[in-house]
Amino acid sequence: MLKIGLAQLLVEPGNARGNVTRMKEYIQEAVTKNCDLVIFPELCIPGYFIGDNWDQTDYMNECISLGEEIRALSENITVIFGNVALEKGKINPDGRIRKYNAMFIAQNGKFIAPGRSPYPFYIKTLLPDYREFDDLRYFTSLTEVATERHAFPEDFLSPLHLTFKNGDELIIGPLICEDSWDENYAVKPMSYLNDSYDIDLYVNISNSPFTLGKPERRHRLFGHSLNRFKKPAVYVNCTGVQNNGKNIYTFDGSAGAYNNDGSLFYEGFPYTNELVVLTFDPDTRSFTGMKSISSQRSETASIYEALHYGIQKFTEQAGIRKVVIGVSGGIDSAVNAALYATVFKPEDMLLVNMPSTYNSQMTKSLAEESAKNIGCTYAVIPVQDSLELTRKQFLQMNLTRNGEVLSSLTLTPFMEENVQARDRSSRILAAAAAAFGGAFTCNANKAEMTVGYATLYGDGAGFLAATADLWKHQVYDLAHYLNTEVFGREVVPQGSIDIIPSAELSAAQDITKGQGDPLIYPYHDYLFSAFVERWQRATPETILRWYDEGTLEENLHTPLCITDIFPGPSEFIADLERWWNLFSGFAVAKRIQSPPMLAISRRAFGNDLRESQIRPYYTQEYERLKKKLLQ
Amino acid sequence: MLKIGLAQLLVEPGNARGNVTRMKEYIQEAVTKNCDLVIFPELCIPGYFIGDNWDQTDYMNECISLGEEIRALSENITVIFGNVALEKGKINPDGRIRKYNAMFIAQNGKFIAPGRSPYPFYIKTLLPDYREFDDLRYFTSLTEVATERHAFPEDFLSPLHLTFKNGDELIIGPLICEDSWDENYAVKPMSYLNDSYDIDLYVNISNSPFTLGKPERRHRLFGHSLNRFKKPAVYVNCTGVQNNGKNIYTFDGSAGAYNNDGSLFYEGFPYTNELVVLTFDPDTRSFTGMKSISSQRSETASIYEALHYGIQKFTEQAGIRKVVIGVSGGIDSAVNAALYATVFKPEDMLLVNMPSTYNSQMTKSLAEESAKNIGCTYAVIPVQDSLELTRKQFLQMNLTRNGEVLSSLTLTPFMEENVQARDRSSRILAAAAAAFGGAFTCNANKAEMTVGYATLYGDGAGFLAATADLWKHQVYDLAHYLNTEVFGREVVPQGSIDIIPSAELSAAQDITKGQGDPLIYPYHDYLFSAFVERWQRATPETILRWYDEGTLEENLHTPLCITDIFPGPSEFIADLERWWNLFSGFAVAKRIQSPPMLAISRRAFGNDLRESQIRPYYTQEYERLKKKLLQ
Repeated sequence: MLKIGLAQLLVEPGNARGNVTRMKEYIQEAVTKNCDLVIFPELCIPGYFIGDNWDQTDYMNECISLGEEIRALSENITVIFGNVALEKGKINPDGRIRKYNAMFIAQNGKFIAPGRSPYPFYIKTLLPDYREFDDLRYFTSLTEVATERHAFPEDFLSPLHLTFKNGDELIIGPLICEDSWDENYAVKPMSYLNDSYDIDLYVNISNSPFTLGKPERRHRLFGHSLNRFKKPAVYVNCTGVQNNGKNIYTFDGSAGAYNNDGSLFYEGFPYTNELVVLTFDPDTRSFTGMKSISSQRSETASIYEALHYGIQKFTEQAGIRKVVIGVSGGIDSAVNAALYATVFKPEDMLLVNMPSTYNSQMTKSLAEESAKNIGCTYAVIPVQDSLELTRKQFLQMNLTRNGEVLSSLTLTPFMEENVQARDRSSRILAAAAAAFGGAFTCNANKAEMTVGYATLYGDGAGFLAATADLWKHQVYDLAHYLNTEVFGREVVPQGSIDIIPSAELSAAQDITKGQGDPLIYPYHDYLFSAFVERWQRATPETILRWYDEGTLEENLHTPLCITDIFPGPSEFIADLERWWNLFSGFAVAKRIQSPPMLAISRRAFGNDLRESQIRPYYTQEYERLKKKLLQ
Repeated sequence: MLKIGLAQLLVEPGNARGNVTRMKEYIQEAVTKNCDLVIFPELCIPGYFIGDNWDQTDYMNECISLGEEIRALSENITVIFGNVALEKGKINPDGRIRKYNAMFIAQNGKFIAPGRSPYPFYIKTLLPDYREFDDLRYFTSLTEVATERHAFPEDFLSPLHLTFKNGDELIIGPLICEDSWDENYAVKPMSYLNDSYDIDLYVNISNSPFTLGKPERRHRLFGHSLNRFKKPAVYVNCTGVQNNGKNIYTFDGSAGAYNNDGSLFYEGFPYTNELVVLTFDPDTRSFTGMKSISSQRSETASIYEALHYGIQKFTEQAGIRKVVIGVSGGIDSAVNAALYATVFKPEDMLLVNMPSTYNSQMTKSLAEESAKNIGCTYAVIPVQDSLELTRKQFLQMNLTRNGEVLSSLTLTPFMEENVQARDRSSRILAAAAAAFGGAFTCNANKAEMTVGYATLYGDGAGFLAATADLWKHQVYDLAHYLNTEVFGREVVPQGSIDIIPSAELSAAQDITKGQGDPLIYPYHDYLFSAFVERWQRATPETILRWYDEGTLEENLHTPLCITDIFPGPSEFIADLERWWNLFSGFAVAKRIQSPPMLAISRRAFGNDLRESQIRPYYTQEYERLKKKLLQ
């Protein structure tokens, strides 16, 4: 019987010393709890999302040297952990030192090499570069090592034979994160390891961010492979938040033990730093003791959990202790205020309402209600005087060219909408944040982000866009969840939920007359999701084909009926092109300068969806379909 | 004798139809000029930097179908071009369709397959993912194809046997861009192709952005390999600009023909769309006719050329026809104004000076001089009234919590500096740009970018940061070059070159008293370059080791003597930590929201240097050295 500790370690990227300090505490705890083996996540010393700091040789050497400190603690307990591995003196053709994403196994104060590998550590084979992180940019894979030696990867893949103090033996199949993705890949670490050896237990160490549905997908995929090979497994993932600049990810941990049919035997609490201790019988290859599986969460509960944890850890890491939130009375800012109120004390939150003449009494009252419900600091700072000063300065501007006086520049009503939006964020909120001793938030949602329905340096600004990866319908669901499940009372004002969404930036957006945003969210949310979130991303060609086939509602999963929104093809096409032009045009320029976003979807704007500023494009097939439909 | 056309094609990323239209014109021209063969750049149909639009199946199919149109034109001329290739019905495990970065060879209306390849096109083998673009994110390499089939890459690498109408035969070694990087790589397309076959001519098609010194490095590396194998080659690269969001790159073309000793026989004009026609004798494997090699340019000339071309093409592509530039009288804005004046007509440029009480008469006059020298539109819009309005609004702010009135927020002088900076860009320049019908520029340099010595939504804002990849000394060199070489007269005012750099945001930055920026550019430029631009990026540990060893000046290449700047280790260390904390701290947050930058260095901020918001870190070795030095 072996006692195995799975360490749901809080990994802070770029803080190797901090991570190792926490590892040492867990090792101590595992020793105290008589563990034979303790397992830490992938890359738990350097952290994962450290950007091109992977090129800092000094930091790499620091991580190696800290790994040696962990090795030295393996006299009385076997320790498995993820770290960067270097090949002494080896410089890549690009001038960087050679690095591996590696699993180290320390026993009796020494590192143990997996059988046939040419290195004293296990090298990750499947390096991801398809979403938010590029392993391939930094690490050399086992495939490359093999090719270099004119061999095949499976020639180097072998399990680890461990012998413990009590005489127990254990044959481990080492896997790092994606290495468990068995099917469909040219290189199949799980199969290779399994085909040649009789594995007792797969050990998967991961550094895997949460996105919606991922814990379930992870279990399903991993479980499927395990069932195929009839082998049990343990899975260890870190907690904490990590970011790649534009995208901030939460890491849920969700350590797990799997039976040999792939079913879950144990699952750690998400977002909890804990040492899960399990008993494993190498003879029967089964876990004994208490089963524990977390209950399934609703999508909104998962979103709330991720956003709450993400805001908490990100602000903690960035040293932000107070926040300023611009509140309009609308749903987005009210939800953001409530969300931050689950992390910050009311006295550390300042809500600011910044009305111009276009803002209704209704929304001004709702903004104040938000602050009252939270019990936080509140101020009203109007933008009208500033708008009039700008108007005056532009009217009186002395415009010259080569000594000749020209007529002054005219601000149109549309330009003045943006002047107000920028005045709110860049003048008032930024100064208020500095004076309040904190930072101000961006309250945008994903539908707005998609088409750039926000002003650059205006409502598109802030230190963090916490809800920018939520479609509008998810924002509404979250409002409901916050009131009913989190607070158990009305914190997001019901009025903010009930009113029609509107920017209130001009007389044409009069909320009291029911005039709101140009977006029909229950349709556009789903249309935009098809542009953004599908692996094979839809362009107008696909959308128009679905429309033509009559399968659009079904394919988009919109709750609305298309013919109720658009009387005919010409209206449908005009709307499609309007948003496609914005999405793939000016909105890209805005997103390039957007704040970092908390990512929860399978495709978030930012580094997860990389974009170039190029011209909107329509395929020849689209033009053909359009012509046909308009005839 | 064969006539070969090398097409320096203007490639517009994401505009497949536009690219193919231009290709057809070149094919026509090549036919008219009796070419036997015409060669186009890598990925010339889709373009290269199209971000995750590589996931748009519709766009991929469009590119394939346009490739068929080019194939159909190969009845009377052999055509080689780069395009994306799909494997019918093959979906990757990540849900995307399988894609190759491929070379297509069309002759007699058909595509010809390279001998042993399982596909009717040549597949790129070395996929770059080390700087500004990730081939690995999108494309499957020949190595993966081989591994999948349990073979080695060289089993599929083979040359192309071409037979021309005149009976001439030609054995071509196909190479796509990095495939010529022969040495030090596990997979060596050039060697494999050469070892097994008797190649007549290597054909390298590229889509390779310009960075400083790259054309020369390209010739040196490629020439070195060719000399080793004693084979001649042609190289074809595209022109135009492409961006990956944060970084805008120029593509210089620089098509070339190499003799079999690796020396250049012919080089196309940089940044010129042209069909270079060469005569090649397959029997002697040599080029005949006129040699032509461009003369070596100075670094500043290359920088100017890239910035001028970059501004021109990027604004053209983005539809920006007018620019607004905030001018302070300082060097950065004066150089930017002069640079834009090489692209825009004076009447399409508006320079705006936005003084507060802290701005000297000297700099205000210099700002006006800039506009006079260019002959463009000019206005003075002060920020004093707005600053006072903000002051007043903050003083009179009614701050409450739970009905209780709190004392209002205080703006410190430092906060007011940022209020002024944001007022200039987000209130005045943004509105002026809209009213003028254009966009406003960001005039930051790389030293400022490194440590965030610019205000977010203030002088850090704009549609394009043209000089953000230039160190301050390069900005001065460019000022000189613009006046002497480009304009032949003083356009950048000499006064702007001569004054001490200063932000003039407070009484402590009084230029008339010689009080300027806290940066000693001739030292910090070089220190920051070591943080940013080296492949093995320096951290304070390396810097302090150099300082301790007495090799700092030599390693940094700073023209200054360290002991002249810092009396002793404590001053040196305080300065080092001050900037390191900013560089790896708050400045990262600012860069995440920065405008796109024209990239000219070997490591530009943005996608070329990927960054996460993490805490500044000092290694244990640094702490040890510091302790030693401070004792």
